[in-house]
Amino acid sequence: MNKGVLIIISGPSGSGKGTVVKALPPDLGYALSVSVTTRPPREGERDTRDYFFRTPEQFAAMRDSDDLLEHASFVGHFYGTPRFYVEEKINEGKIVVLEIDVNGALQVKEKYPDSVLIFLMPPTLDELKSRLIGRGTEDSETIERRYKKAYDEIGLIDQYDYLVINDEVPNAVDRINLIVAAEQLKPKRCQGAVNTFKGVVE
Amino acid sequence: MNKGVLIIISGPSGSGKGTVVKALPPDLGYALSVSVTTRPPREGERDTRDYFFRTPEQFAAMRDSDDLLEHASFVGHFYGTPRFYVEEKINEGKIVVLEIDVNGALQVKEKYPDSVLIFLMPPTLDELKSRLIGRGTEDSETIERRYKKAYDEIGLIDQYDYLVINDEVPNAVDRINLIVAAEQLKPKRCQGAVNTFKGVVE
Repeated sequence: MNKGVLIIISGPSGSGKGTVVKALPPDLGYALSVSVTTRPPREGERDTRDYFFRTPEQFAAMRDSDDLLEHASFVGHFYGTPRFYVEEKINEGKIVVLEIDVNGALQVKEKYPDSVLIFLMPPTLDELKSRLIGRGTEDSETIERRYKKAYDEIGLIDQYDYLVINDEVPNAVDRINLIVAAEQLKPKRCQGAVNTFKGVVE
Repeated sequence: MNKGVLIIISGPSGSGKGTVVKALPPDLGYALSVSVTTRPPREGERDTRDYFFRTPEQFAAMRDSDDLLEHASFVGHFYGTPRFYVEEKINEGKIVVLEIDVNGALQVKEKYPDSVLIFLMPPTLDELKSRLIGRGTEDSETIERRYKKAYDEIGLIDQYDYLVINDEVPNAVDRINLIVAAEQLKPKRCQGAVNTFKGVVE
């Protein structure tokens, strides 16, 4: 069996990455990554399914031994992507999906160069802005700040492997599917076939 | 308009690359590369359509000024891939297709790193051998020599961008189509969109 692949769906706030990730069909082998967090579990949340819940000491130990592909803090709690989980799922042949902001995405790519970095964007900057406004939950200052941050993030597109325009969610999903299908034809991702051709006994 | 892409379909004798290349649908933007040769035109062959017919001196001048992406000789005549033709078609947005042996393919990749290197293979080594035998036009010594050469070429798969199994021609064509579609989502190949997002006026 061929190994899976880690795909990182990233892009500015308003790019629709959350919606697109939820629309990726599990029957094609997609599996969402599960994060490590120091935040206490909320009602209904289960360890290993929703998060790996860890103490701050455990989290720090993982970080210090390079067991986190990226990490960040948010309102006093730490969050990170555990290397062991990603690698386990990849070895099972899964397409592990990580939905993450641009800063985290570039951290992961550095630690895990075989990952596939996808930048999601609305079709136009105007559309991005109207999506930020359309949420209706933020004041104009927050929207301006997000738009400014989006603009900075767009400057990093060239560091990504792929740019996917999210005009409609099903189109974006189709594009991600074909990226994954093409990536799985790379020799490094089908070493089973390559070794058979070379006569290498596994 | 986005730039096109140079795809190199390569693989051992018996991989079926000639048949697959002929089956690529022109309406998707595929355009076969046209070679430069010092061989005299045969009846019905037309300059610029079938080959660029050049004198040995003209050929040598092109080679020496790095105007050939690769070149080789065959029964006393020279053949090469002209850089100007490939670049012209790419600027027109075409998917320029080069069908070439493994040695030539690696030469092109070195001179033109943005090219996409595809290694075509029958599903098994046995199938490769039976395709070599099945032609029925070669003696067993020639077949053994080709098989030995194929084996050496297989050792170079890891230098390729993609491995496409040619079990059935339509399947191989589908795989090449999806590779091209995915490649065109790479930021370097859609700088038009990237620059628009960045607010760069073209």
